[in-house]
Amino acid sequence: MTDHSADPDTVLFQRYRDPGFARPAQWNATLDVLMAHRSVRRFTDAPVSDETLATLVAAAQSASTSSNLQLWSVVAVRDPARKARLAGFCGNQRHIVEAPLFLVWLADFARLRQLAEDHGKPLDGQDFLEAGVLGCVDAALAAQNAVVAAESLGLGTVYIGAIRNRPEDVVHELALPRYAMPVFGMCVGRPDPSLSFDVKPRLPQRAVLHHETYDLPAQREEVARYEERVNAFYGEQAMAESWVARVLARMASGQSLTGRHRLREAWHNQGYELK
Amino acid sequence: MTDHSADPDTVLFQRYRDPGFARPAQWNATLDVLMAHRSVRRFTDAPVSDETLATLVAAAQSASTSSNLQLWSVVAVRDPARKARLAGFCGNQRHIVEAPLFLVWLADFARLRQLAEDHGKPLDGQDFLEAGVLGCVDAALAAQNAVVAAESLGLGTVYIGAIRNRPEDVVHELALPRYAMPVFGMCVGRPDPSLSFDVKPRLPQRAVLHHETYDLPAQREEVARYEERVNAFYGEQAMAESWVARVLARMASGQSLTGRHRLREAWHNQGYELK
Repeated sequence: MTDHSADPDTVLFQRYRDPGFARPAQWNATLDVLMAHRSVRRFTDAPVSDETLATLVAAAQSASTSSNLQLWSVVAVRDPARKARLAGFCGNQRHIVEAPLFLVWLADFARLRQLAEDHGKPLDGQDFLEAGVLGCVDAALAAQNAVVAAESLGLGTVYIGAIRNRPEDVVHELALPRYAMPVFGMCVGRPDPSLSFDVKPRLPQRAVLHHETYDLPAQREEVARYEERVNAFYGEQAMAESWVARVLARMASGQSLTGRHRLREAWHNQGYELK
Repeated sequence: MTDHSADPDTVLFQRYRDPGFARPAQWNATLDVLMAHRSVRRFTDAPVSDETLATLVAAAQSASTSSNLQLWSVVAVRDPARKARLAGFCGNQRHIVEAPLFLVWLADFARLRQLAEDHGKPLDGQDFLEAGVLGCVDAALAAQNAVVAAESLGLGTVYIGAIRNRPEDVVHELALPRYAMPVFGMCVGRPDPSLSFDVKPRLPQRAVLHHETYDLPAQREEVARYEERVNAFYGEQAMAESWVARVLARMASGQSLTGRHRLREAWHNQGYELK
């Protein structure tokens, strides 16, 4: 259950499976929400109102954006037929159909391109890889604020990276103009109360947090420790075990990217040179 | 002031400068934190403890990550001499020197590359643009959770995109291995209480939120409305006016990207083909 009254000590234990990781002295309701995150893939039929959507978007717009460029947009999809088609483009993930609200987050230079054309100004900075980074980072910061807002309201969410599997089909379905590029999708809805959604363990902090300079060899030990802890979680979930085997399989080849080996071409087709 | 007891109605008015945008019926303490965000560039000398840093990293690790790949790391810099050098790589932003804690967020395949080598497995999926998107999005989701956690604790932050101005110098300074790539920096500290940090207005929701399909022409009117509202803000801040002029100048050319026209080459130098 998305139960933000969950005991923070329990949640932190689930996050690290490390009895040595204690709750810090300073704690608050927002940290409760942040630490208790889990992806939700089963929803009730309860709709997400326009007012709630406006709250999520206000949270998203309150996130930082590079130089106030605001290089993102979001398309809210509720039409069942459109959600079904989008699910088809995303490996038939049924939670896209079942969620009352599906958000497609875009890296979006279309607004600036229109402005530049209206003012007869160049926008050649958009031809560089930096433009793609700006758009992806802006979209991600905004979307993550929307997730936190949604979870604070008792809603559940899951990111859908598979929106990048067949980007041109998504572009066509949502009538995206040139320069508007899907970065990820997001299901939003009320979590099915009959199911429990567990907190997934993450790498020990010593694997991801470095002091002053980066330490790679030290990560071997941390990853080995994690492999044990996460396998206990996978066992409980009746999922095939081994984080190491999973991640190496996922990134093994262009083939294993489920269509996303074509992503550069798709960005090009939307007008990004990424040079 | 980073005053999260600020009246939400006031904050929402500052965010949109639109008397028609009312606070939704459902509200809570987390929404207070999210909506009140502002970037903070002046800090007191008060240090950020290791315990607080652990809280920020736990929040960051609680964010979603594509396929649980956890493709990010963060380097915490407190050494004044190192902060001064990093500030020099980032257009001499003095808040990097003044903040007690400077975080450099990385898109990081180094951990997976080491794993793949240790296991004699290929990791050819990393050669594609998708790998860069995964790393940037993972880093951004994590960092944004850290920002929300920091602000919930009364700290202030500002993202530093200029970490991409001279990436190779940052790589050298932080002893980053191949495949670890700086995405953005972040200053963290206690906001100087003698200064006020105002909520920056954003585009009307109708410019960024679309329903079912994307609408570009309708954005002209929303951008014009925003230009008026944000100019009132710039006037109050004694800053040069016009959002339109600012954004078009920023993205006008490769030259206007303050070094980031070289970003693709820098990613290549760190082992990303982005093909």
